[in-house]
Amino acid sequence: MLLAHSTWPEIDAFLKTSKTVIIPIGSNEQHGPMGLLGTDWLCPEIIAHAAEKQGNILVAPTFNIGMAQHHLAFSGTISLRPSTFMAAIEDWVKSLGRHGFQHIYFLNGHGGNVASIEAAFSEIYSQWSYKGIRCPFALKLTNWWDLPGIASLCARQFPVGHGSHATPSEIAVTYAAYPDAVRNVPMEPKIAPNGPIRDALDYRARFADGRIGADSSLATIALGQEIIDAAVPALLKDVEKFSTEVRP
Amino acid sequence: MLLAHSTWPEIDAFLKTSKTVIIPIGSNEQHGPMGLLGTDWLCPEIIAHAAEKQGNILVAPTFNIGMAQHHLAFSGTISLRPSTFMAAIEDWVKSLGRHGFQHIYFLNGHGGNVASIEAAFSEIYSQWSYKGIRCPFALKLTNWWDLPGIASLCARQFPVGHGSHATPSEIAVTYAAYPDAVRNVPMEPKIAPNGPIRDALDYRARFADGRIGADSSLATIALGQEIIDAAVPALLKDVEKFSTEVRP
Amino acid sequence: MLLAHSTWPEIDAFLKTSKTVIIPIGSNEQHGPMGLLGTDWLCPEIIAHAAEKQGNILVAPTFNIGMAQHHLAFSGTISLRPSTFMAAIEDWVKSLGRHGFQHIYFLNGHGGNVASIEAAFSEIYSQWSYKGIRCPFALKLTNWWDLPGIASLCARQFPVGHGSHATPSEIAVTYAAYPDAVRNVPMEPKIAPNGPIRDALDYRARFADGRIGADSSLATIALGQEIIDAAVPALLKDVEKFSTEVRP
Amino acid sequence: MLLAHSTWPEIDAFLKTSKTVIIPIGSNEQHGPMGLLGTDWLCPEIIAHAAEKQGNILVAPTFNIGMAQHHLAFSGTISLRPSTFMAAIEDWVKSLGRHGFQHIYFLNGHGGNVASIEAAFSEIYSQWSYKGIRCPFALKLTNWWDLPGIASLCARQFPVGHGSHATPSEIAVTYAAYPDAVRNVPMEPKIAPNGPIRDALDYRARFADGRIGADSSLATIALGQEIIDAAVPALLKDVEKFSTEVRP
Amino acid sequence: MLLAHSTWPEIDAFLKTSKTVIIPIGSNEQHGPMGLLGTDWLCPEIIAHAAEKQGNILVAPTFNIGMAQHHLAFSGTISLRPSTFMAAIEDWVKSLGRHGFQHIYFLNGHGGNVASIEAAFSEIYSQWSYKGIRCPFALKLTNWWDLPGIASLCARQFPVGHGSHATPSEIAVTYAAYPDAVRNVPMEPKIAPNGPIRDALDYRARFADGRIGADSSLATIALGQEIIDAAVPALLKDVEKFSTEVRP
Amino acid sequence: MLLAHSTWPEIDAFLKTSKTVIIPIGSNEQHGPMGLLGTDWLCPEIIAHAAEKQGNILVAPTFNIGMAQHHLAFSGTISLRPSTFMAAIEDWVKSLGRHGFQHIYFLNGHGGNVASIEAAFSEIYSQWSYKGIRCPFALKLTNWWDLPGIASLCARQFPVGHGSHATPSEIAVTYAAYPDAVRNVPMEPKIAPNGPIRDALDYRARFADGRIGADSSLATIALGQEIIDAAVPALLKDVEKFSTEVRP
Repeated sequence: MLLAHSTWPEIDAFLKTSKTVIIPIGSNEQHGPMGLLGTDWLCPEIIAHAAEKQGNILVAPTFNIGMAQHHLAFSGTISLRPSTFMAAIEDWVKSLGRHGFQHIYFLNGHGGNVASIEAAFSEIYSQWSYKGIRCPFALKLTNWWDLPGIASLCARQFPVGHGSHATPSEIAVTYAAYPDAVRNVPMEPKIAPNGPIRDALDYRARFADGRIGADSSLATIALGQEIIDAAVPALLKDVEKFSTEVRP
Repeated sequence: MLLAHSTWPEIDAFLKTSKTVIIPIGSNEQHGPMGLLGTDWLCPEIIAHAAEKQGNILVAPTFNIGMAQHHLAFSGTISLRPSTFMAAIEDWVKSLGRHGFQHIYFLNGHGGNVASIEAAFSEIYSQWSYKGIRCPFALKLTNWWDLPGIASLCARQFPVGHGSHATPSEIAVTYAAYPDAVRNVPMEPKIAPNGPIRDALDYRARFADGRIGADSSLATIALGQEIIDAAVPALLKDVEKFSTEVRP
Repeated sequence: MLLAHSTWPEIDAFLKTSKTVIIPIGSNEQHGPMGLLGTDWLCPEIIAHAAEKQGNILVAPTFNIGMAQHHLAFSGTISLRPSTFMAAIEDWVKSLGRHGFQHIYFLNGHGGNVASIEAAFSEIYSQWSYKGIRCPFALKLTNWWDLPGIASLCARQFPVGHGSHATPSEIAVTYAAYPDAVRNVPMEPKIAPNGPIRDALDYRARFADGRIGADSSLATIALGQEIIDAAVPALLKDVEKFSTEVRP
Repeated sequence: MLLAHSTWPEIDAFLKTSKTVIIPIGSNEQHGPMGLLGTDWLCPEIIAHAAEKQGNILVAPTFNIGMAQHHLAFSGTISLRPSTFMAAIEDWVKSLGRHGFQHIYFLNGHGGNVASIEAAFSEIYSQWSYKGIRCPFALKLTNWWDLPGIASLCARQFPVGHGSHATPSEIAVTYAAYPDAVRNVPMEPKIAPNGPIRDALDYRARFADGRIGADSSLATIALGQEIIDAAVPALLKDVEKFSTEVRP
Repeated sequence: MLLAHSTWPEIDAFLKTSKTVIIPIGSNEQHGPMGLLGTDWLCPEIIAHAAEKQGNILVAPTFNIGMAQHHLAFSGTISLRPSTFMAAIEDWVKSLGRHGFQHIYFLNGHGGNVASIEAAFSEIYSQWSYKGIRCPFALKLTNWWDLPGIASLCARQFPVGHGSHATPSEIAVTYAAYPDAVRNVPMEPKIAPNGPIRDALDYRARFADGRIGADSSLATIALGQEIIDAAVPALLKDVEKFSTEVRP
Repeated sequence: MLLAHSTWPEIDAFLKTSKTVIIPIGSNEQHGPMGLLGTDWLCPEIIAHAAEKQGNILVAPTFNIGMAQHHLAFSGTISLRPSTFMAAIEDWVKSLGRHGFQHIYFLNGHGGNVASIEAAFSEIYSQWSYKGIRCPFALKLTNWWDLPGIASLCARQFPVGHGSHATPSEIAVTYAAYPDAVRNVPMEPKIAPNGPIRDALDYRARFADGRIGADSSLATIALGQEIIDAAVPALLKDVEKFSTEVRP
């Protein structure tokens, strides 16, 4: 069930059967010469929407802009400051919590979001912790590549050149969902360099075409579909586990 | 051209031909028993994506959560505080401005967003105004229903019962784009009441099923398509005018 | 009754008879070569203070600095960032709400304030809406020129050259109240140009002497007095209507 | 010269002769059964406006709402949070600094404002200090009762019962300027108690009618006029000294 | 009892006997050629830790970074913006208040902190005052040099050259506690100049080696020990008085 | 070299030889019945101060309060909200960056700090990235237990019962540095449970005495000293590597 494609009485009805909602969250940022700017929000959206067709889950609109300051030297990147990102996450959570959702699950598509999302969770929990009132909802963050079975699948698919940004796995997922997105660009060098992540100009100086450690050209529609097919049941299971967690 | 479905070198190339970008912006909020929660962000997205197929424009990802505090007593509504909303708009604009975009056009789908978006524009301009440096980009907000010709079309389509929230026009646009979205729910009363907008519980006390002044049941796929077909050229023309504005 | 010229026991007594308070709100910003920098806060103050002599209303101190970033390239302008302005409005409202005022009416004198004031209202209401508690007070914004009868009066007074900034009507109101304020400056051009409002340097490049679309030289003491005389009963009636509104 | 009663070309002309501006700043808060709620902003306004008639100084609009959280249990008090107050002071200063004012002098009427105003000054200076750029303006805070000669005058006028809130001196100043403001209320007890200042309910529990250590009933129009007459030359001298300070 | 060297069950036990906690608070900033950068946080820590050995008091960790923007032109200074400093104080207080502490005593070592700390107190109290709920704890700020008897002792020790920054008294206290800290640097001039405090570059232009009005070379271990010995009983007495204050 | 025990001319001199500074950062929070509340800031301080005696490094004052909202249901815990924590980190970094430090190394002692510190780094870098100016300094976060060799040492020392909060390793480090801190409390159960971390009351419901997965009673002075002895050279090496990193 897609929240944005439902009416409020339908959400009221859903809430009688489940208190769980899934938020695909990502970033809109450069992904090298072969990857879409939307890769990081498209991937969790693709997986969550595919899962929604198979399981009785509720998927919120996609939180499509995240923390991507280090990519700002590449055109098309849109980034929120961590403080803005955190405030927005807080407002999403407060809104959903107000309706009675007790399990709010973020399916994340961008490694650079993790620290800010977790800091946002702590900021939200803080409000209850200072007051000494128990927070009525639980928050959970899962990166789609950390869903059980996915990392090992990607390692099998891309034993060399998986890397950590503009990876063939994430690009493959978008290619599988949007065949028009397939690009054919020679990678130079074949495998991009590695290094630390700092500000945007430092990043561009280190990573000339935007990739980190990855050979994006390994991405294919078929491999992407394989990932999606593995991620869907893994997600449904992970959400189920979260939803049925016993609260002490 | 959809920004999220492009690569950064493609945006670099686009920037050599145009400095204009369009951001569909809306809200995810109750739209009565017949309207989708996503109505207000789907409408500008539908129109902008249709326009993108006809003109040489660049459409950013959709800013899908807006200022909807007054709808929070209806399930599924997700709202940003005005202050959060403004900070996020600022970050989007700074990101795009950094890449060299000089004309940033927001196509809005939610009346409740207008004050906060304009306040955000002023907050952004302020930073230049206090310093006495000229802001390198221009910002523009247009509600899709204010595009030339649309208001008169809707008045013809819905001479009675158009109202101001969960209007048949906006619902029709979503029905045209997503035929599965069509709902058939008896309106009771046929035309919803009018009144002032305050906090969420006040709103719910005044507007029992969420509509304001509207008879949503007048929405049809055909009427929606008619609106889209009229909005697309109007948008392209409005964007062209903004892009070619002479700067004093 | 002027709040600032009352004692706290007198306000306690007033609160037994009425829960309404009026806040004149404006801006301190350039108004061309003939208009006072204080025009936008003086006008609502003049009208509210005149009304206070005729009706049993309570008028708070004047909120004299507003959102005027676009005027900062002209000396004497003092502007709050929208975010500051909103925080200050919130504090005024919380203070007055705490004393039991249930109808807080802002009589505004600056068009550039509208978006920020409405965003502030939403920010205040949000706090109640997220919590699901009904807000104990209602907020209302009225521009003095939108009081019933005023726009048509000004149209009759100034059929040509009324414009939208440094208008003869607002300048006339200040001239009527402060005859020493009358200036006699040749307008060049007679009617100022129109255009969009952006940052301060853009504004100055478009509007050389600060006026927009107006011929300030049409202002006279007599015309100003006529406006005040019409505005006073209109304000009293509007406030009465707001105060007696039935809450659902 | 009153800034709000001037036009922008007149301020431009003034800036060619002086870079100094005076801001009367106070608070709107209870002042016991005999003192006006506006006392703390009226006093510096009265003194500054009287001085403006005698010297070539520029007086900005009055900053009439300050930090008065401890008075909120008494009706009519309007308080800004320190953080809001500081942001607003920053915006006033940035606006005036942008026009070329180099000496910004706050004439304060409320002891409770002092910490927040000084913290605001440090917040403003910080922005230059972190960057290592010299701040182009100097800020100064003077309480009107600290102007040379005033404290000793008040001590002579009110050897007993001067106290520290709702003092006969501040009330006398408002009585002198607004004879209609004179109230005749028996003080019970004659001299109010002393004690620490904390939150609003603590304050009300300690200071039943709002006064601290003061016998407000000693205030007379004549004594108030005497204070004003002494404060005016003292202010002009203090401002002159500040304006001519040699910068190292 | 040192809070950081205790376990939570030990603090639980302490709270059954006392609701008072002492926070040494200072700044890390230049103190001229003879004074340690840590002087302002070391002094209150030294005194509080010495007092803790003699009385049944609880001493929190030292708040070691304060508001030192004016010293930023000298290497090693670390400053918080007033707004950051205030937010941090609020969080410390909320944390301690949550555990049931009712008397929170800040022993301060930096004059430049005073305004921001007091503004922070007001910000904290505000939250209760707007709501009309009594704040459950009391806050108190004491500068160590304002403890009874200390100012007169320092005046006797340093009749000439005490000054106001990098004073021989504060440096002596650190020398007494850390004999390795003793430096022997010729003071040039012997007594530093006085002047106003503004931004960092202005400060450096006025006060070449960082001192204000002081002859730091008068500091000795013996004089420092004398100050500590006097401050300890004065602190214990002041804390006792605060802890046993009767609440109206 | 300890920054707080140095003078500003000494830091000036140091800066001629090195642009690196180390900030021990931790938290003040419950560590079960045997661990000190200060454990998490004492550990990095102990290690950094020991390293400072052996290598030519500069150690800043300890940042002793971190993000510990989940521990607030245990007495003595002091927590900053993530947003406050981030603002404070920003101010520390800006202060040190202003003096010319180019390598700012945080040695962290609290896992719960990691997300907020990394979010703070991104917030700081953002300011440069939006502007398109290269950030003049590099930031690095290392948890002391992630220094090369430490995790394997702890695994050898505590093959069972190391856990993740109130671990025997961190407690041992404090015992080694402060022998008086040794407590002897029976652990019940011997090994604490594991589980997710949410708000404070949820935490207390899951982890009755505060420990997570740990048997704190395994801590001894000797084991702690062994950890310190291993951490010191590892830290010096890691700092050296960071300081000599080649910037692209």
